[in-house]
Amino acid sequence: MNFGIVIRVLGILLLIEAVLMLPSLLIAIYTNGVDKIPFLIAILISVGLGFILSKKENYKNQISAKDGLAIVTLGWIIASIIGAIPLYLSNSTTTYIDAFFEIVSGLTTTGATLISDVESLPDGIIFWRSFTHWIGGMGILVFTVALLPALGVGGFQIYKAESPGPVAGKIAPRIKDTATILYKTYAIITICQIIMLLLGKMNLFESLIYTFGTVGTGGFSDKNNSIAFYDSTYIQLVIGIFMVLSGVNFSHYYSLYNKKFKDVFYDGELRLYLGIIFFSTIAITINLFTTSYTNIGLALKDSFFQVSSLITTTGFSTTDFDLWPSFSKGILLLVMFIGGSAGSTAGGTKVIRTLVMFKLIKREITKIFHPRAVIALKDNNKIIDDDTVVNIFGYFSLYVFIFIASTLLVSLEGIDLLSASSSVLTTLNNIGPGLGFVGPTRTFGEFHQLTKLLFSFLMLLGRLELFTIIALFAPKNWRGEI
Amino acid sequence: MNFGIVIRVLGILLLIEAVLMLPSLLIAIYTNGVDKIPFLIAILISVGLGFILSKKENYKNQISAKDGLAIVTLGWIIASIIGAIPLYLSNSTTTYIDAFFEIVSGLTTTGATLISDVESLPDGIIFWRSFTHWIGGMGILVFTVALLPALGVGGFQIYKAESPGPVAGKIAPRIKDTATILYKTYAIITICQIIMLLLGKMNLFESLIYTFGTVGTGGFSDKNNSIAFYDSTYIQLVIGIFMVLSGVNFSHYYSLYNKKFKDVFYDGELRLYLGIIFFSTIAITINLFTTSYTNIGLALKDSFFQVSSLITTTGFSTTDFDLWPSFSKGILLLVMFIGGSAGSTAGGTKVIRTLVMFKLIKREITKIFHPRAVIALKDNNKIIDDDTVVNIFGYFSLYVFIFIASTLLVSLEGIDLLSASSSVLTTLNNIGPGLGFVGPTRTFGEFHQLTKLLFSFLMLLGRLELFTIIALFAPKNWRGEI
Repeated sequence: MNFGIVIRVLGILLLIEAVLMLPSLLIAIYTNGVDKIPFLIAILISVGLGFILSKKENYKNQISAKDGLAIVTLGWIIASIIGAIPLYLSNSTTTYIDAFFEIVSGLTTTGATLISDVESLPDGIIFWRSFTHWIGGMGILVFTVALLPALGVGGFQIYKAESPGPVAGKIAPRIKDTATILYKTYAIITICQIIMLLLGKMNLFESLIYTFGTVGTGGFSDKNNSIAFYDSTYIQLVIGIFMVLSGVNFSHYYSLYNKKFKDVFYDGELRLYLGIIFFSTIAITINLFTTSYTNIGLALKDSFFQVSSLITTTGFSTTDFDLWPSFSKGILLLVMFIGGSAGSTAGGTKVIRTLVMFKLIKREITKIFHPRAVIALKDNNKIIDDDTVVNIFGYFSLYVFIFIASTLLVSLEGIDLLSASSSVLTTLNNIGPGLGFVGPTRTFGEFHQLTKLLFSFLMLLGRLELFTIIALFAPKNWRGEI
Repeated sequence: MNFGIVIRVLGILLLIEAVLMLPSLLIAIYTNGVDKIPFLIAILISVGLGFILSKKENYKNQISAKDGLAIVTLGWIIASIIGAIPLYLSNSTTTYIDAFFEIVSGLTTTGATLISDVESLPDGIIFWRSFTHWIGGMGILVFTVALLPALGVGGFQIYKAESPGPVAGKIAPRIKDTATILYKTYAIITICQIIMLLLGKMNLFESLIYTFGTVGTGGFSDKNNSIAFYDSTYIQLVIGIFMVLSGVNFSHYYSLYNKKFKDVFYDGELRLYLGIIFFSTIAITINLFTTSYTNIGLALKDSFFQVSSLITTTGFSTTDFDLWPSFSKGILLLVMFIGGSAGSTAGGTKVIRTLVMFKLIKREITKIFHPRAVIALKDNNKIIDDDTVVNIFGYFSLYVFIFIASTLLVSLEGIDLLSASSSVLTTLNNIGPGLGFVGPTRTFGEFHQLTKLLFSFLMLLGRLELFTIIALFAPKNWRGEI
């Protein structure tokens, strides 16, 4: 590994984080909150450490995939360690581990919280928590498009050839171009949502908070009962629709801009994603209307909001869906597991992998009668080769292993299995709320400190597509064997 | 499809079933039970129908993989339809659908029951229920060794080259030899267990009942509280150990007989299977001893019995494990999901598939740093090719799809999600009891008739490795397109 460049880039990341904490400091000063000094200290530490690390000289100016992996993983961890300082110093959380959990949850765009009374937090802290969603969402876009295809992890090489941006010979300038396009798209969507919320008579501060939570598919709120606070169909609808938009592969927006409508219209992942949202919403609406709801319009609205919130792994809620009937809860668990599209800010196992599973089932049935036939898996006229399929199977294998092992560990807390498994699902898939013990009206505050660290680790694992983190910490890696 | 041969073989199967019902008829006559006439009627129908079908002439004397598939699937269904007659006519069940469910459960070696007071059944019926386990176990051995490798379904082609028996040029005589060896092994294990149980002062009738339930990994009992009735460590241990033996790939016994000890000792599936049993037993013992149990010996005994019963998908119980802590229940769910070894009478997703998942995870991590390296998956020096890996992924994809869709359907009964999912798991994996609503002290009696049909379908699906049934009923199959 090229340690020199890794350290240097980490230093630059810390300097950037210091700059990103400035708006929160300004808000803290403007509102004269208890978080003024904490932000100042955090910024100074970030600048100091960043300055030292980025001064690192004598390194080779060359980044391998392995180095990129180390930078991303360690970057996310260090940014969380520093970003947690203001929360801890302002007594927003009781322990430093709690603060760390909260900022990991922010930067991984999870939105799981352990703060039961969010409304009592100082404004600077509220802004910082939500802003980490927006930063994390931006980070993940570039990670997905630039690093994952190069690593060939978990099927992301499907997108190797089709990242947006002009096709150039060398990788480096192309990644830079791609990143610029993504950032612009991300910024435009952000601005659109802020305007839409302002039109709904939300104030600027809250418009920012909810836009960060939506486009980053995070889910932190400044209200104890999340979006249910806003008894406005307009606001709930705006957030619902922007959540759906944020769960779409961002390269599609570039294709639309370039008038490549066919690429978008025939994209299997997009069709399946919208199809799942549509049919899940209908199924839950019927289930709700035939059991607890008397108003079908309300059932439809709540159903759509919760489905779009959970499939995009945002985690906002307009009602306590933990009280819904088993069938509806089952569908919510399903969309939580699937998650959003690859190349979006959403987490989860990604719709593209579910799509490949469906196509594979179809092919295997055909193959029983034609054992010697070679049938290629295709999507929108692009071939998905067997290597990619095996990669995706590897991803799911590791996912299941981590999921089961973590659920067993969490079950030692003495909670029921549905609560244990949904708390793992909601952190590993970067959602936020789950069912039962971690339902939308509950927090993660009652868990043991070690369990909170486990959840923090799961959030990072999920966000970085499992293999990247596991590989970095594999003993063989450090012995230089791989 | 060669309909002629399919019909003819189904006819022969019915004639065999008539013969297999004779012992039950004799017991019914000997005990002068209400089941005398019902068995007589069932045998007459079976003989009559079998005679008509097997007289089918002008067929091509040639069986394709597709025909074999039709024979196995339809054979299992028709045998259940006829086998259910005595239960219905003797009023052992209220409806015919209940009787069908019970015999599907028997022939698929599941052991899920809807009869709450088993002890009130006539002896002939008790014998027949349990005997169907033994018949089903025998059927599945040949199905796995003879048909599945030829179809190349779900990874079973791993065993294509290594079925026991002398290697001959043509397939037909080799399958016959293989089948003979399997039948002999099955018979020897059966006789051994009967003798061991007789030595434990169990009477002959009950020794037969529990041996059928064990070696077929079924789980039907003649006592309302299953093995807990026998307050004998010896009997519980004998059944526990024979369950483990029945979950081993039967070809290993042939290898041992031929003194090929290395083939057995280095077999990855066997090692993983025994390893899972060992570590699960230890983990549950510790969990039980630190929570509810005061006697560690008792905790160890109950833990071992339940683990071996559920990983082999037998379903006997010595205690109500639904009352165990979440951690222990989680481990039980895990071993229920994994199931026994391929080439045994056990159900589930099979240890070999879990083994491939583990090996794949390891390889994918290595490949991140060596994207161009070609690393073959190996077990005991045999290469598992990528085609097999993709097949196994196809199997799991279909498994997950069926599992989720069925759980959602069952959840419409208004039961909690853990009960709904474990009732699907326990039927799809041919286990018997589950957790909650279908825990070891409960039955499937309270479900809607349609749900019972769904469970019957799931038992058949699981037993025949999913794809075979799906493929047979695929619309394209009937349109002749595949």
